[in-house]
Amino acid sequence: MAVKRRDRLINITSFLLEHPNHPVTAKSFIEKYGCAKSSLSKDIKIIRHNFAVRGIGRVHTQVGATGGVTYTPKVSPKRTKAIISSIIKDLNNHDRYLPGGYVYMSDILSRPYTLEQIGDVIATQYLDKPVDKVLTMNGKGLIAPSVAKALGVSFIPSAHQSKISDGATINVNYFSASSHQLHNLVLPQRSLKEGSNVLIVDDYLKEGSTINGIINLIKAFHCKLAGIAILADGSNGHLNFDHPYQSLIRINPNEGQIKASFGNLFDKKNN
Amino acid sequence: MAVKRRDRLINITSFLLEHPNHPVTAKSFIEKYGCAKSSLSKDIKIIRHNFAVRGIGRVHTQVGATGGVTYTPKVSPKRTKAIISSIIKDLNNHDRYLPGGYVYMSDILSRPYTLEQIGDVIATQYLDKPVDKVLTMNGKGLIAPSVAKALGVSFIPSAHQSKISDGATINVNYFSASSHQLHNLVLPQRSLKEGSNVLIVDDYLKEGSTINGIINLIKAFHCKLAGIAILADGSNGHLNFDHPYQSLIRINPNEGQIKASFGNLFDKKNN
Repeated sequence: MAVKRRDRLINITSFLLEHPNHPVTAKSFIEKYGCAKSSLSKDIKIIRHNFAVRGIGRVHTQVGATGGVTYTPKVSPKRTKAIISSIIKDLNNHDRYLPGGYVYMSDILSRPYTLEQIGDVIATQYLDKPVDKVLTMNGKGLIAPSVAKALGVSFIPSAHQSKISDGATINVNYFSASSHQLHNLVLPQRSLKEGSNVLIVDDYLKEGSTINGIINLIKAFHCKLAGIAILADGSNGHLNFDHPYQSLIRINPNEGQIKASFGNLFDKKNN
Repeated sequence: MAVKRRDRLINITSFLLEHPNHPVTAKSFIEKYGCAKSSLSKDIKIIRHNFAVRGIGRVHTQVGATGGVTYTPKVSPKRTKAIISSIIKDLNNHDRYLPGGYVYMSDILSRPYTLEQIGDVIATQYLDKPVDKVLTMNGKGLIAPSVAKALGVSFIPSAHQSKISDGATINVNYFSASSHQLHNLVLPQRSLKEGSNVLIVDDYLKEGSTINGIINLIKAFHCKLAGIAILADGSNGHLNFDHPYQSLIRINPNEGQIKASFGNLFDKKNN
């Protein structure tokens, strides 16, 4: 029995939102819903227009025999600013200052919906660049799964120690400026293919030594660095990796108070 | 200008899927879309029926002055079986056996869509129980954010070591049977309120010592244990916590091969 337009719109919207950056053939939708090609085209047109108006993403249609539909989260500049503003407000309003120039923000990073918004905003910056994998630091980068979802790829967390279930691993060492110690970084050998384009995602940047460690790990896997995305930049802008990084928020913790503001993503040169 | 039904259906579907277990007032939808109450009621009815037919969740409407709409992911038994079957097939088909009775499954846990499906399946088991927080072991429980999202709560990962950005922490020790070592478990003091109902989520169960450590941590915070949900149970069923646990998958790793099968969730006594 043919599925009604109203139900097709609900089904296709659900499917696209759950499968960002995964092309699905028009044929499979047509077979599933028992509708004419022209009806499906109209459905897609309605959804494309709706997503565009709401500033949440683009629905791309490829014509021809391999014709397919792909939803790509693309947060409009206006929505990006609104999302980041709200996080900045939260960071500035609370008693989040910790000794040593650190900021308590675990609660923000434990709200699933906020994580998804951050993921969509970061993914939007890498839409036209090749990204095969999102790499993060174990237990810190809770935003990595959201970024990976929005980009339609998978993610891997590197750890300080290997686990029994990792199998063979590749390890690098790096010197941490803040702890004055040598640290180990580990990734399962089979988790990352040679030649992959790897996007580094981290929640907080301070001395940059962990990022440098991860960059070395990417080299050890013979992979390419696709970018570095940071939620909150507490480095005072003094850092200089081999590769530029993008931050959503700048943090200036001074004695007993925090000043959070828009990150370098919003700087003029980036717009 | 009033929003057309087709666009309302797309908007409301998106909103509900993104905000599981968050009641939203009918009034706010009516104001947003400039439609009559009866039109909105019909929209909700269409969406409720659609979600029910697809076996993905229930849309609950509360009438009256505080009337609201809530979407609760509720995976039907049939869909639950299909989702878990597909993971079992994947686990059995590949060269995943690791020495010591462990199984490589990091790749499965790095696919955002699979994580969301697992999250919805686990959340479905705790629909009628009070859960305020999802707690997991840092870097292991990548399914915790998905479970938390589906339940509409936040999650926290406990770690072996405190981080600078944790602020004050509460610590417990536990003895690990597999490593014959004493381990430390840490949670930021402000991450968990006294009296909260805490659901423990972990990806792999072997000796159970980590779970026992987390249970002690929950006691140290004067919180209540709402349940223990395990993706893959490799314990051979010999474990006995103070509280029953639910597993989605059983794993029997023998010399050089793995046998994955349905977990205790599918046992007759649980149905």
